Amino acid sequence: MDAAKPAFGKIVIFGPGLIGGSFALALKQAGAVEEVVGFGRTPSTLRVAQQLDIIDRAGINPAHEVPDADIVLVATPVAQMPEIFARIAPYLGRDTIVTDGGSTKGDVIAAARAAFRGHIGKFVPAHPIAGAENSGPAAARADLYRKKKVVVTPLPENSDERLDRIKRAWACCHADIYELTPEQHDRIFAAVSHLPHLLSFALVHDLAVREDADLFFTFAASGFRDFSRIAASHPEMWRDICLANRAALLEELDIYRYQLDELRQALTSENGERLEEIFGIARQARREWAGD
Amino acid sequence: MDAAKPAFGKIVIFGPGLIGGSFALALKQAGAVEEVVGFGRTPSTLRVAQQLDIIDRAGINPAHEVPDADIVLVATPVAQMPEIFARIAPYLGRDTIVTDGGSTKGDVIAAARAAFRGHIGKFVPAHPIAGAENSGPAAARADLYRKKKVVVTPLPENSDERLDRIKRAWACCHADIYELTPEQHDRIFAAVSHLPHLLSFALVHDLAVREDADLFFTFAASGFRDFSRIAASHPEMWRDICLANRAALLEELDIYRYQLDELRQALTSENGERLEEIFGIARQARREWAGD
Repeated sequence: MDAAKPAFGKIVIFGPGLIGGSFALALKQAGAVEEVVGFGRTPSTLRVAQQLDIIDRAGINPAHEVPDADIVLVATPVAQMPEIFARIAPYLGRDTIVTDGGSTKGDVIAAARAAFRGHIGKFVPAHPIAGAENSGPAAARADLYRKKKVVVTPLPENSDERLDRIKRAWACCHADIYELTPEQHDRIFAAVSHLPHLLSFALVHDLAVREDADLFFTFAASGFRDFSRIAASHPEMWRDICLANRAALLEELDIYRYQLDELRQALTSENGERLEEIFGIARQARREWAGD
Repeated sequence: MDAAKPAFGKIVIFGPGLIGGSFALALKQAGAVEEVVGFGRTPSTLRVAQQLDIIDRAGINPAHEVPDADIVLVATPVAQMPEIFARIAPYLGRDTIVTDGGSTKGDVIAAARAAFRGHIGKFVPAHPIAGAENSGPAAARADLYRKKKVVVTPLPENSDERLDRIKRAWACCHADIYELTPEQHDRIFAAVSHLPHLLSFALVHDLAVREDADLFFTFAASGFRDFSRIAASHPEMWRDICLANRAALLEELDIYRYQLDELRQALTSENGERLEEIFGIARQARREWAGD
């Protein structure tokens, strides 16, 4: 390998916003890519991405850009991925690897299988864990993934070489790379991310629709502030995530409802010992996790 | 009234920790009190409170301290209040007003009625909304209540004069004073404080008791951090609050469980429109409340 040659030639990014744009900026900063081509639904977003040097140019026709791409990153909301997979499927080159930035994996993989069929080995699913308050290309940063977790969920069809190339790309972003099965991934994120969002949305909605909602919000304090912060998340995005990870989320929701039933029982029977035990286990786990 | 004379003569504080100690410091800073006497279960706490000039001396016998006190503030955990009310009940002076700092009101008022009987008019219930990370006299601050809410929940037996005196004391702390009925208070705080704590404890416990708990906590990120912060709260204190406000909390928990049932139904039937509606209403309410 020529020492002066970047690790990757052309990278194509569908959705060069926070997630896709930060990936591009990191690879550019690392000198690891020759050219970045962006596709997006809104021309103004692509213009901003180009002005910010996130992409070198906007792509027009996947048939012209995908065949000689080393990596195609699909970094759109998960709901848009099936259509994009279908658009690019006819044009995958021999060395093209497709990857994604979706926060659910089972549904994305199902869509990829439907689109790529016999070429599914070229799709290496991934999930960078780097949410931020803002979105869009203006929010993208070369260091977004530094010391952040990126979960790769390999398929049985992925060759070691393809898997390594995707890992290498994320390593260029200075991310900490983990491997999970897609099932593990979806179960874990249902429990630690999707369910908490659902629970927070539910509480705030429950209060907001009351006739005397103002009275309640007047006395909401710092505990409520922390608990409800994620209820300010984007409704459309979270609708899609919840639907996409529906099966795992329903399982986690049912486990949680069972937990609430138990707390309800402890309250009804004034079982202070059990309440304290549950609260104590939670507190210790939270403190250990947070390093308090 | 002598201009040089403080508004209050002697104030007796049961539990001169964060809540009681900050009340004392604020009144002292305002020059509004002649003497502060502290009672507490642990001699070392009283010594610290005295070293920090929160109290002028430690009380030994309520029979000697309560009769000529202007205000007796019971700022212990709510579970200890019934016993303290019983201890001081025989010694209330003609001008003594008892108040409390408990975060639930129905149960505290019931205990006060049982102890004070015909003198219940001397008890003006209150709840200062000023939690903090730390507790104990060392955490007390003269400005803890500045611009913080204090809810007074008057009883029908409270004279305007007694109510005004308690409000005046909190005004010396620069608090914003609100009036609610005890029932309103307990319903509101069940919804905006006690239930969120229960829900947060429940989620963290639910994860912590799994065999593969570590795997889940490894991928928990900032949303989980916010949601679970209150699960690091004190188990004994929250056991007591949940039991004390059991009736209102159970009602709120059932409303919430109904809300979860609806979300479950929307997920099962893939009703994205309803999910987005619920999330959207929550987001707007959260943003308006937080001033985002």
